[in-house]
Amino acid sequence: MNERLKKQLDFLVEVDKMKNILRQTLIIDKSRRENDAEHSWHFALMAMTLFEYSSSKEVDINRVIKMALVHDLVEVYAGDTFAYDVVGYEDKQKRENEAADKLFSILPKDQELEFRSLWCEFDEMKTHDAMYANAIDRFHPFINNYKTEGYTWKLHKVTIDKIYKRMEIIKYTIPEIWEFVEFAINDSIEKGFIIKGE
Amino acid sequence: MNERLKKQLDFLVEVDKMKNILRQTLIIDKSRRENDAEHSWHFALMAMTLFEYSSSKEVDINRVIKMALVHDLVEVYAGDTFAYDVVGYEDKQKRENEAADKLFSILPKDQELEFRSLWCEFDEMKTHDAMYANAIDRFHPFINNYKTEGYTWKLHKVTIDKIYKRMEIIKYTIPEIWEFVEFAINDSIEKGFIIKGE
Repeated sequence: MNERLKKQLDFLVEVDKMKNILRQTLIIDKSRRENDAEHSWHFALMAMTLFEYSSSKEVDINRVIKMALVHDLVEVYAGDTFAYDVVGYEDKQKRENEAADKLFSILPKDQELEFRSLWCEFDEMKTHDAMYANAIDRFHPFINNYKTEGYTWKLHKVTIDKIYKRMEIIKYTIPEIWEFVEFAINDSIEKGFIIKGE
Repeated sequence: MNERLKKQLDFLVEVDKMKNILRQTLIIDKSRRENDAEHSWHFALMAMTLFEYSSSKEVDINRVIKMALVHDLVEVYAGDTFAYDVVGYEDKQKRENEAADKLFSILPKDQELEFRSLWCEFDEMKTHDAMYANAIDRFHPFINNYKTEGYTWKLHKVTIDKIYKRMEIIKYTIPEIWEFVEFAINDSIEKGFIIKGE
C-alpha cells in the first residue's frame, strides 16, 4: 500500500483512543463523564454556531473548527488535565509535548507539521483564531457544568474566583456570551452549584 | 437574555443527546459501541486528513467538515438507522425530516436554514462536497469494522455484495482509498470477518 496513506490511516486509527479519554465534565443527562472525542465535536459545533459573537473580525472560523478537531489529540498519551488542577498543570506542557512528538510523527512530515502547528497555536493562545477557540473550549464545559447542577465544580470544590479567572477570556473574545456567563455564575451561586470560597 | 443567543444555547444543549445515540459500530478497542458525537468528530478529522485523495478538485473541505459536524444531528430524535437495515431505510426519510423540523427550528431562522440545508445537501449526495463527505462517512465505520475483526458485519451477517455496494462511492470520489478498501475486503474474507453470501 501507498506508504503515505498507510501513515495517515495509522494516525486515524490511533486517535480512536480519544473516545476513552474521560474529562471531568458530565454529559448533560448526568449519566456519565464526557470523553475527548465528544467534547471536540461539541466544541467545533459550538464555535460554528456562536461565531457571530466573536469580537474580533479577524477570526477564520474554518481554522478554528480545525483547531477544535485536533486541540485535544495529545491527550491520547498525556491524558486529560483538569482545568482547575494546579499540580497537574505543573508538568502539563512537558507531558503534552512528548505526546505530540509521539502522535503527530505517525503522520507524513507535511501533515505532522500542519497538525502540530494548529495544536501549538491553540495552546499558545496568541492569535485571534486561538483566542476565540480557547474561549469556546472553556465555554463548552461551563455550559455542561451549569446544566448538571455544578457537578464538577462541587466535586472539586472549585471556587467562584477560579471560575471567573478561567472564563475571563470570554469577556474579551465573545462579550455577549460573557453576559450569559455572569448570569449563570450568579444563578449557580444562588442555587448552591458553586461555593463562594474563602 | 438576548433571545437569539438563548435559542442558540438551547440548540447546543439539545444536541448533547448525540452522545447517547449509539451506532452499530464498535470503537476500535472493542469495549463498546460508538456514539454519533464521536463518529461525527472522527469523520470530520478523517475528511481533513485524507482530503488530498479527493478526485474532484471542486471540493471545499471547510464545507465538508461543517457537514460532518451536522450530518447526524437529526438522529437525536430519529435514532440511528443501521446502514444495512432494509426495513429501517423504508421510513428513514420521513423520520428524519420530522426530526429535522423539530431540531433545526430551535435555532434562529437564518441558522435553521443554514444547518438544515447543509444536512439536506449531505443527504441528497449530489454536489461534489456531499459526495466526498458521504464517501468518508462510509469509510469511517468500514475502518472500525475492519479493525474490530468485522464485528458489525458478522453480527448482522452483512454479505460482501452489500459491503461493495455501500462502499462503491469511494471508488469514484477517493480512488486511492478504494484500493485500500478492496485490499481490506479481501483480507476480511480470508480472515472470516465477512461472509461470502449466497
